[in-house]
Amino acid sequence: MPMPWRQLPVGVVGLGLIGGSIALDLRRRGLIVHGLVHRETTAQRARERDLVDQVSTDPGVLQGCGLVVLALPLDRLLDPDPALLAAIPPQAVVTDVGSVKQPVLDRWQALHPRFVPSHPMAGTAHAGVEAGLVDLFVGRPWVATPTADTETAALASVQDLAILLGAHWLCCPAAAHDQAVALISHLPVLVSAALLQAADRSAAASGDGLSVLVRSLASSGFADTTRVGGGNPELGTLMARANRTALLQALQGYQHCLAGLEQLVQQGEWSGLQAELSRAQQLRPGFVSPDRSAG
Amino acid sequence: MPMPWRQLPVGVVGLGLIGGSIALDLRRRGLIVHGLVHRETTAQRARERDLVDQVSTDPGVLQGCGLVVLALPLDRLLDPDPALLAAIPPQAVVTDVGSVKQPVLDRWQALHPRFVPSHPMAGTAHAGVEAGLVDLFVGRPWVATPTADTETAALASVQDLAILLGAHWLCCPAAAHDQAVALISHLPVLVSAALLQAADRSAAASGDGLSVLVRSLASSGFADTTRVGGGNPELGTLMARANRTALLQALQGYQHCLAGLEQLVQQGEWSGLQAELSRAQQLRPGFVSPDRSAG
Repeated sequence: MPMPWRQLPVGVVGLGLIGGSIALDLRRRGLIVHGLVHRETTAQRARERDLVDQVSTDPGVLQGCGLVVLALPLDRLLDPDPALLAAIPPQAVVTDVGSVKQPVLDRWQALHPRFVPSHPMAGTAHAGVEAGLVDLFVGRPWVATPTADTETAALASVQDLAILLGAHWLCCPAAAHDQAVALISHLPVLVSAALLQAADRSAAASGDGLSVLVRSLASSGFADTTRVGGGNPELGTLMARANRTALLQALQGYQHCLAGLEQLVQQGEWSGLQAELSRAQQLRPGFVSPDRSAG
Repeated sequence: MPMPWRQLPVGVVGLGLIGGSIALDLRRRGLIVHGLVHRETTAQRARERDLVDQVSTDPGVLQGCGLVVLALPLDRLLDPDPALLAAIPPQAVVTDVGSVKQPVLDRWQALHPRFVPSHPMAGTAHAGVEAGLVDLFVGRPWVATPTADTETAALASVQDLAILLGAHWLCCPAAAHDQAVALISHLPVLVSAALLQAADRSAAASGDGLSVLVRSLASSGFADTTRVGGGNPELGTLMARANRTALLQALQGYQHCLAGLEQLVQQGEWSGLQAELSRAQQLRPGFVSPDRSAG
């Protein structure tokens, strides 16, 4: 027998990349989706793209939903509109898709008894109501960070949602999630942005010739290493803000590692440097699935 | 009238990715190619792959060549075999493909009167006698770093070679080349390797749970940012060794930029952080052609 949440409309709050993709996937599986958006123009595009069965800027659209997915940017998730809070049905299971979990948990566990903090880890370079895609979550991690206070049936509903959409379900403590994403997602943004800054500023300090030359010679390696640093600045800032403590800790660990490599170069310890680079080469396949390992 | 070098066999010393690709491209254009390799097994594979017209481990194979391309690893290029030196015809134009230019220039300008330092900037993740590809250099920069002492006719021959193979020809001082590649090629290797180390060590310091979690959650952004850091350790070490001064300078500039971003996070200056990330986003297209900009 299907779980109870599947028999009622699903409310999706925010129809950007994540919310829009969840809505599309659910509709393709025969579920009814009600979308709540901020602006009428977004509602209009959501109708044109046929993302949802109903869409409105009025939180009343969530009435009757058995599951509500909060697919909002972190700042709006952490400071929710009172009208949204008032409109979420008390009996609905509520989950979010925020990429930092401890502050979301701290805020929402007090706001709704059936809240389940979760983070579907999928993305593309695009955002907004045009960005939603079918099958975005297939094979991707969907992490929940329940506590002892999280309702078991609510957690099971969100797990059912994740699996229905083809994701790989994981549970861990919110603090561990936030440390992990600091290391593998938020730290890389700063590391990568600093590389763009360094190439620009160091070359500029040496004169126009070098500024032109670095831009002419940069190739696929530089493109790869700077991709996330050249990404959405609002998103990068929201992540840093919401995950500040874990990010600062990750930055310290990173700077220590880089200083170690610098010292080997400084002291001309070439066999030591080669050993560290060999170790890095061996580490990478543990983090990166084979289909992402090539250039 | 074709330039004189085209009317004689071309000697290619080393038939790895770069040497093998040059050989294949030249033969497809009707030129005669003589390959010199280190090991008999490599000579055998070069024959089987039909990379060259003649191949030998005996430097005598270079006899009669009008152009000799030194496609050797940097260490062997900087410390050349006396038998190779003795076998290069005195009238031949000689060029190299080394990725650091000042030390190669310092060494080879004294060794051969018709030497032209050059660096075709193309690559794949592969190396060795199986790696050579046709059209590897099409649309890629081929940088020469001549001095006032470089023979004009020899420089014109190497330019003719680069253009024949479809590359984009550039000339700049060796020191500028080495500063530029430090920033856009050698620095990214260390920046990227340190990220793998930090993710591994910081997670390990927090216990097994986090070590598993970072590996489960790492996604395409982490894969991109760590690609060059997980590359060939021998190559990374050779680059750092040959370009030590410029790399250390690039590292200092980089650490300064990263510390600036850290300070913004530390002090909670979110509008300042967003401004820096916006600047990084604006900078990137200047370095990365549109076809490499997406994820």
